[in-house]
Amino acid sequence: MQMISAQSKGVFVIAATPFLPSGEIDLASTDKMVDFYFEKGADGLTILGMMGEAPKLTHSEALSITKQILKRAGDKPVVVGVSAPGLAAIGELTKAVMDEGAAGVMVAPPGSLRTNEQIIAYYANVVQTVDEDVPIVLQDFPLATGVHISSATLGTIFENHANIVMLKHEDWPGLQKISDLRAAEEKGRRRVSILCGNAGVFLPEEMARGADGAMTGFAYPEMMVKVCRLSNRGETDKARDLFDAYLPLMRYEQQPALGLAVRKYVLAKRGVIAHAAQRKPGADLSPLAAKEVDILMDRLEKRLSALR
Amino acid sequence: MQMISAQSKGVFVIAATPFLPSGEIDLASTDKMVDFYFEKGADGLTILGMMGEAPKLTHSEALSITKQILKRAGDKPVVVGVSAPGLAAIGELTKAVMDEGAAGVMVAPPGSLRTNEQIIAYYANVVQTVDEDVPIVLQDFPLATGVHISSATLGTIFENHANIVMLKHEDWPGLQKISDLRAAEEKGRRRVSILCGNAGVFLPEEMARGADGAMTGFAYPEMMVKVCRLSNRGETDKARDLFDAYLPLMRYEQQPALGLAVRKYVLAKRGVIAHAAQRKPGADLSPLAAKEVDILMDRLEKRLSALR
Amino acid sequence: MQMISAQSKGVFVIAATPFLPSGEIDLASTDKMVDFYFEKGADGLTILGMMGEAPKLTHSEALSITKQILKRAGDKPVVVGVSAPGLAAIGELTKAVMDEGAAGVMVAPPGSLRTNEQIIAYYANVVQTVDEDVPIVLQDFPLATGVHISSATLGTIFENHANIVMLKHEDWPGLQKISDLRAAEEKGRRRVSILCGNAGVFLPEEMARGADGAMTGFAYPEMMVKVCRLSNRGETDKARDLFDAYLPLMRYEQQPALGLAVRKYVLAKRGVIAHAAQRKPGADLSPLAAKEVDILMDRLEKRLSALR
Amino acid sequence: MQMISAQSKGVFVIAATPFLPSGEIDLASTDKMVDFYFEKGADGLTILGMMGEAPKLTHSEALSITKQILKRAGDKPVVVGVSAPGLAAIGELTKAVMDEGAAGVMVAPPGSLRTNEQIIAYYANVVQTVDEDVPIVLQDFPLATGVHISSATLGTIFENHANIVMLKHEDWPGLQKISDLRAAEEKGRRRVSILCGNAGVFLPEEMARGADGAMTGFAYPEMMVKVCRLSNRGETDKARDLFDAYLPLMRYEQQPALGLAVRKYVLAKRGVIAHAAQRKPGADLSPLAAKEVDILMDRLEKRLSALR
Repeated sequence: MQMISAQSKGVFVIAATPFLPSGEIDLASTDKMVDFYFEKGADGLTILGMMGEAPKLTHSEALSITKQILKRAGDKPVVVGVSAPGLAAIGELTKAVMDEGAAGVMVAPPGSLRTNEQIIAYYANVVQTVDEDVPIVLQDFPLATGVHISSATLGTIFENHANIVMLKHEDWPGLQKISDLRAAEEKGRRRVSILCGNAGVFLPEEMARGADGAMTGFAYPEMMVKVCRLSNRGETDKARDLFDAYLPLMRYEQQPALGLAVRKYVLAKRGVIAHAAQRKPGADLSPLAAKEVDILMDRLEKRLSALR
Repeated sequence: MQMISAQSKGVFVIAATPFLPSGEIDLASTDKMVDFYFEKGADGLTILGMMGEAPKLTHSEALSITKQILKRAGDKPVVVGVSAPGLAAIGELTKAVMDEGAAGVMVAPPGSLRTNEQIIAYYANVVQTVDEDVPIVLQDFPLATGVHISSATLGTIFENHANIVMLKHEDWPGLQKISDLRAAEEKGRRRVSILCGNAGVFLPEEMARGADGAMTGFAYPEMMVKVCRLSNRGETDKARDLFDAYLPLMRYEQQPALGLAVRKYVLAKRGVIAHAAQRKPGADLSPLAAKEVDILMDRLEKRLSALR
Repeated sequence: MQMISAQSKGVFVIAATPFLPSGEIDLASTDKMVDFYFEKGADGLTILGMMGEAPKLTHSEALSITKQILKRAGDKPVVVGVSAPGLAAIGELTKAVMDEGAAGVMVAPPGSLRTNEQIIAYYANVVQTVDEDVPIVLQDFPLATGVHISSATLGTIFENHANIVMLKHEDWPGLQKISDLRAAEEKGRRRVSILCGNAGVFLPEEMARGADGAMTGFAYPEMMVKVCRLSNRGETDKARDLFDAYLPLMRYEQQPALGLAVRKYVLAKRGVIAHAAQRKPGADLSPLAAKEVDILMDRLEKRLSALR
Repeated sequence: MQMISAQSKGVFVIAATPFLPSGEIDLASTDKMVDFYFEKGADGLTILGMMGEAPKLTHSEALSITKQILKRAGDKPVVVGVSAPGLAAIGELTKAVMDEGAAGVMVAPPGSLRTNEQIIAYYANVVQTVDEDVPIVLQDFPLATGVHISSATLGTIFENHANIVMLKHEDWPGLQKISDLRAAEEKGRRRVSILCGNAGVFLPEEMARGADGAMTGFAYPEMMVKVCRLSNRGETDKARDLFDAYLPLMRYEQQPALGLAVRKYVLAKRGVIAHAAQRKPGADLSPLAAKEVDILMDRLEKRLSALR
């Protein structure tokens, strides 16, 4: 099993957790979904993230779906979200998933942190809690966590802890932060991998600013894969043409809280998972919203045809 | 002077406040900007909003720019933002701007409100503070205010106060809220005008859900005007074609805090205002960001040519 | 094992979790502490609360300390805190502790809830998640959770769910809420038990307003026991004399975040637990703070002597 | 007129704004109240603070009451709260009140600040906005502002700006912050005056940690004056005896939002102001709450008699 590192690049798809309408985990769809992500060019997966309905899984379910996805992913890296209110739970889940072959763990800061000093201390505690060879992804998502981490604070954390190898970047606005971090590296700070979230809606600019790729769950991972590849080859206009075609749907999928229902609806409509169902208390798309997504998917197909 | 009402429709542009590089208000640009907005088809303006740098204006400056814009706007309606931590300041500014001929005032809830009951009581206090014939716009913008107002709470406020005639809708996600409010009206609740914000990034869906138009400051108001008109005529595909062309730039302009710098940069580049400068402590666009906007404007022009 | 109910009264002490300096759970001190609480007159205990360092316990540690305390408590009721970001974890832990003989579970709202409607829906989901005969304590602690629940919202939740039998009341200010809830009961709403937190600093007023007792972890539970008994007998002046003697220390212990260190320091100094140690990353009292507590304990003893 | 400085010491009472039942400012009571504060030993006053109902005053009312209080205060220093969402308003009000003879201005951070860097930049902007010889009080009150300022961040701000001469300290818990700041001064950072708020409930410990006095609005300023004097003379036990006598009422007055109603009720009952009325939308004490305060005032009198 490949570990993530400060050199990791490409697209890590945030995986959904497929459910049967009964609320059971849909194991057949899970395998199919993993295959789909890699067929579309994903370089890795991230599971049990905020969008993976992790809080609705029991501990044993979380472990069991982790095992299944790790097995299906073969030698591709799979990052596992282990954020929790307590360090003990983070330590426990980290040990369990690393033993199973995870490529690293992802930790978002708890909402109670306020000052720079508290944020720095928190990641020191996390690093002390897990084994020193566990690669860690720092998830910087202020809109969801309420915790704002300045570029300088990120820099301090990266300096302090060599095993924090990756930033899941989803500050908003966040483009300057990428430039800040890369500038600090040019002045000698060690490199970290920067994979960007925010549903991909700034991917062309993020790549131009020095991001290494994307880590988000947009239901057309092929867009992210191609935009990253085209960007890396310098074909930025072509990258933007493709990006723009998907943007109306991406924007719709980016809606907080609603995004997961949209993503599952699209995945089901694309035949990737059998059911769009979320486990309770998640709500399915309303008929009106489903129709809005239908229109966006139709228009996307036409636009892609015109691009070919 | 025309007043806003529950029947108001169309596009109210949130106006910027033009400054000279010295920090003085740029009066010549102000007139030019007002003319530009109406030439592009705006139905009205909203001034001294969050994006109008209102907090950087002294009381007398705020009044003086209001007078100038009201004069230049002629018989077109101009709404004035009067949100403030205290009711006394709201009452004072409301009286002053209504005396000058404003079409109504806009009030966002202060960030200290928590429960539904507190929000309902707040608007009762606002209504008591201003004269009973002043039309009020309720600004519902949780991302900026931190105050979340449910559809039912909005309904109660509208029932309680006939002079709250308009909702500036910028909850996110907020489409369901439009549907909720219109459904309540069909069951007998009095009508309110719903003009949508959020930089316009959901305008096609908002119009389809029953919105009356847009109230936001996107630097190409002609897009909003045309999308609203096309939507009203049922030409939704054409509306979306146009909308999609502008979306890459709209998405960029929607970035919190950064949006105003983008907007002013675009207005200056379009020749509408002489300088993109914000009054301190506002920051201009970084060179990298300016280049990103240049690319988006270039691509927009090409896309519009292809649409014609 | 006795279950809590809407008729529960008296003092439920929020129990600390004793640790050895090594970070291991101190089982001997745990038993001694349970005995101490009941010897001092506690009617029940609440464990794994915010102050019980629950987030620092692994799942198996949490269960094992629950078992030990339940065993030692004998037929006295023990409430277990099961708040968690996800319903699955709440369901799992609730089942486990109820099977072991807990008297009920306590659930605080997650910090993401905003509107009254969201809070009401959340408790409906919690009730659906646990077995219908599990007695639930609603913990209303806005200072810690960020969630503000109005009296009317509490009333709706109590009406909706007969198995929410108790309110852990620690809104601040919160006296009016007690009066509101009791007034609603007089108009016909079913009764709930109200036990008050906030380190006990409003206990005389809370009892006079209709509270049933206290649920907090002040390190002198005998004060709470006596103040409740004296209040119930109408000896309010005597109750206040006693309360006032402890108030300087209570006020010190009430400091957010610091409170647990104070409490453990006092318990250790009283000989109840062997070590004041918190599990990492908790901080012990600084020498200056310890000296401040020493002074307060000395003065308390003198004051109590004078009262006798 | 005396200016505040980094050497200021003693008790600055946060003054209420007396109103007539009609809502008009009660000018006669205002003078009487100023006299009362100084007769009880206050070293200075702070007006237009959060508790002064400043947001309910129009700009001209705020100036007019400032003038009256400054006149009545004679050569005693009066600090004026000038916190506002915008720098322009801060600059305007500062100039106006300094011209009238204020001893300095007090500025709390706006709730939108998050990172240490943002807080530091904000005070740089404030300092640039006002004249360089205006003494500034930094109000650090996280419970009310939502902004958490670490000891190190405070230190940076004090180093950067020599005219920020005083800290109104009301972090909670905040004792360690006093020790941190004094320790930094011993290592060479310039001195600032530290006056403590939080309704005075930690005054003995604050004085022992190195505070210079109190700045809060407890309705018995003589308690603060005496506790500070006794503390300064090293008569700490006597200071605590006195403090403890007032603590039951202080604790009651410290309740957020409710505190002002309690304070005005007590001032009215003591004959200092003619009416306890707050300007709308402030609520008077409920009859139940008023009775609770009556009991506390009675018990205080008895306790003071026993101390004599």
